[in-house]
Amino acid sequence: MIDNLILTPIKIIDVTGGSVLRVIKENNNGYEGFGEAYFSTVESNIIRGWKKHKVMTLNIVVPVGSIRFVMYDSREKSSTYGEFQEVVLSRKNYCRLTIPPKVWVGFQGVGKGTNLLLNMANIPHDDKEVDHLPLESIEYNWRN
Amino acid sequence: MIDNLILTPIKIIDVTGGSVLRVIKENNNGYEGFGEAYFSTVESNIIRGWKKHKVMTLNIVVPVGSIRFVMYDSREKSSTYGEFQEVVLSRKNYCRLTIPPKVWVGFQGVGKGTNLLLNMANIPHDDKEVDHLPLESIEYNWRN
Repeated sequence: MIDNLILTPIKIIDVTGGSVLRVIKENNNGYEGFGEAYFSTVESNIIRGWKKHKVMTLNIVVPVGSIRFVMYDSREKSSTYGEFQEVVLSRKNYCRLTIPPKVWVGFQGVGKGTNLLLNMANIPHDDKEVDHLPLESIEYNWRN
Repeated sequence: MIDNLILTPIKIIDVTGGSVLRVIKENNNGYEGFGEAYFSTVESNIIRGWKKHKVMTLNIVVPVGSIRFVMYDSREKSSTYGEFQEVVLSRKNYCRLTIPPKVWVGFQGVGKGTNLLLNMANIPHDDKEVDHLPLESIEYNWRN
């Protein structure tokens, strides 16, 4: 795993006519405080990238569909400098992905219908703390 | 509206190949701190009720499908004592529903496929702060 990236399996509990999917508690590993929560949807095969946050820690779950996340470590002092990490989240691989600041991240819709992620962020959205790069500027073999 | 119940319209923003659905920020109306986030899914026509929290404030959004929420006010000092309130949430009526403690709540899956709610709660789940009543003990005309 890329340094400081955390992948935490979480529980899905069956209840009458449905289920309960845990997300995150205030005392969980990877929780860095609460600033904002938002959903993103991404259609099949669409890729959105790249983004790097200066301050925000992302805590991401995928309750519907399936989404591929690719992280790229450009932190010069990191033991995993220059490495990529790929994680596909879904209800079959129901985990919380904690992405620390200063790591590049892109994601791609994998499921055919709705692909939905929730990000529980430790700070509210702020354009000034986000760096952007066009998809082609970090080479990665995104599969279809 | 039942006293202290808040219904806040929130934004859905179109982006390339998907959308961003806001949920809640730390400075938003109805935010009472963060304790735990979890999803519940509920199949079509299934009703889950009744629950009343002693301490928890619920902040609920429905990003997928459609869910009917029914609140019943049994707070004797409330100006809306004895009243019911019904709210159907979906992406068409994309709002955040803030339910204060001490109000009974039940919900029903309305959409045919997946009906998904997210609860952003101000305290972690704790069975000791939840009162339960069987569905038939508070009479309400749940429609199919």
